[in-house]
Amino acid sequence: MREAFHQNLQLISDQLVEMTRLAASAMSRATTALLDADVHLAESVIAADKQIDIVREELDALAVDILAREQPVATDLRMVVTSMRMSSDLERMGDLARHVAKVARLRYPESAVPPELRATVLQMGQVAERIVAKAGSIIAARDVEEAKLIERDDDEMDALHRELFEHLVDGSWRHGTESAVDVTLLGRYYERYADHAVSVATRVVYLVTGEWDLDADSDEPEDLIAR
Amino acid sequence: MREAFHQNLQLISDQLVEMTRLAASAMSRATTALLDADVHLAESVIAADKQIDIVREELDALAVDILAREQPVATDLRMVVTSMRMSSDLERMGDLARHVAKVARLRYPESAVPPELRATVLQMGQVAERIVAKAGSIIAARDVEEAKLIERDDDEMDALHRELFEHLVDGSWRHGTESAVDVTLLGRYYERYADHAVSVATRVVYLVTGEWDLDADSDEPEDLIAR
Repeated sequence: MREAFHQNLQLISDQLVEMTRLAASAMSRATTALLDADVHLAESVIAADKQIDIVREELDALAVDILAREQPVATDLRMVVTSMRMSSDLERMGDLARHVAKVARLRYPESAVPPELRATVLQMGQVAERIVAKAGSIIAARDVEEAKLIERDDDEMDALHRELFEHLVDGSWRHGTESAVDVTLLGRYYERYADHAVSVATRVVYLVTGEWDLDADSDEPEDLIAR
Repeated sequence: MREAFHQNLQLISDQLVEMTRLAASAMSRATTALLDADVHLAESVIAADKQIDIVREELDALAVDILAREQPVATDLRMVVTSMRMSSDLERMGDLARHVAKVARLRYPESAVPPELRATVLQMGQVAERIVAKAGSIIAARDVEEAKLIERDDDEMDALHRELFEHLVDGSWRHGTESAVDVTLLGRYYERYADHAVSVATRVVYLVTGEWDLDADSDEPEDLIAR
């Protein structure tokens, strides 16, 4: 009985890692679709989001089942409850990658990103991928020390996001309002994606140490909140 | 023992209703702050968000405590798990109201909303308030029938959101890119707020009927996703 229980906990952990893999792949391909104005790739990202939702559904069903059958306490209970929060973050990250892909599709055959912002958006995509890859390793290894460092990667995303906004509002914008709307939302999608990834990694600290940290809920940095 | 247990479940339900009240008040005041360029009101909304976070923290701590001590199954387990999801939605709604208030503060002494969009934003605020008030009544009364109707209010929000965007991109925009960025984000904040409120209400269906509905996760309507 206890063995089956721990197999189930391991299965949940594996599913979380699988979700980070799917979310990373979605955002990586969405960024390429966006920059290359590749409508087929965009369509494939949009279609693949279902897969993340399915893993999430399985994970949550398993978690509720464990709560009902095994009635875990202490560390085990913490693991199950926290996993459900993490799956919610990861599912949302899939949605955000899909949103990026939808912008790519909407503007096809043009790219939604003006030439002078391509490098910034490319970097945002790379930072997003790096954060979620780290989140996956952190979950797999229950690596509290690495989890505590992940904010640094998020700082990088915030700096890129700020760069994007400054370019929008510095008076030099020549691409019209529609393009400004696209870039505003794209910036927000990448930033929120990174926030959720940080939240996923940070929850591992709670999982392992038992220190409940409400700040683990994904939220924006104060100086970007109004943007 | 069972009586204490049911008192705790009732307490959780009361806390959820209290959160809807706080989230409604926050968005109502944020909208006024935005339209009246009232920086003091904006500050008070920003400060009051802590209160929603505190209720959420209490609720989640109580929920975890119930899981550990009472080891509920079936309907009771469903109630506890679903409540934690609802508190997460409501906490996020508080954040979104705070974001609106931050835009108001950022543009003070101007209003961030151009004159011709005031009526639309006012209506978005009113629809947001109405949806969350309904969500509160639906939780208190466990009113499945009303919960199933709440999508109609959300359709209204989506129509207003579309109106806002159409005005941004129809070629008549004369307020500059910075203002376009503000209005883009404001539109998204109201829309996401309503999505989360709908999600809260829809989860009551699961709570009462046991029909798990993954679509209850707040997500955007398909034709607005890319926006």
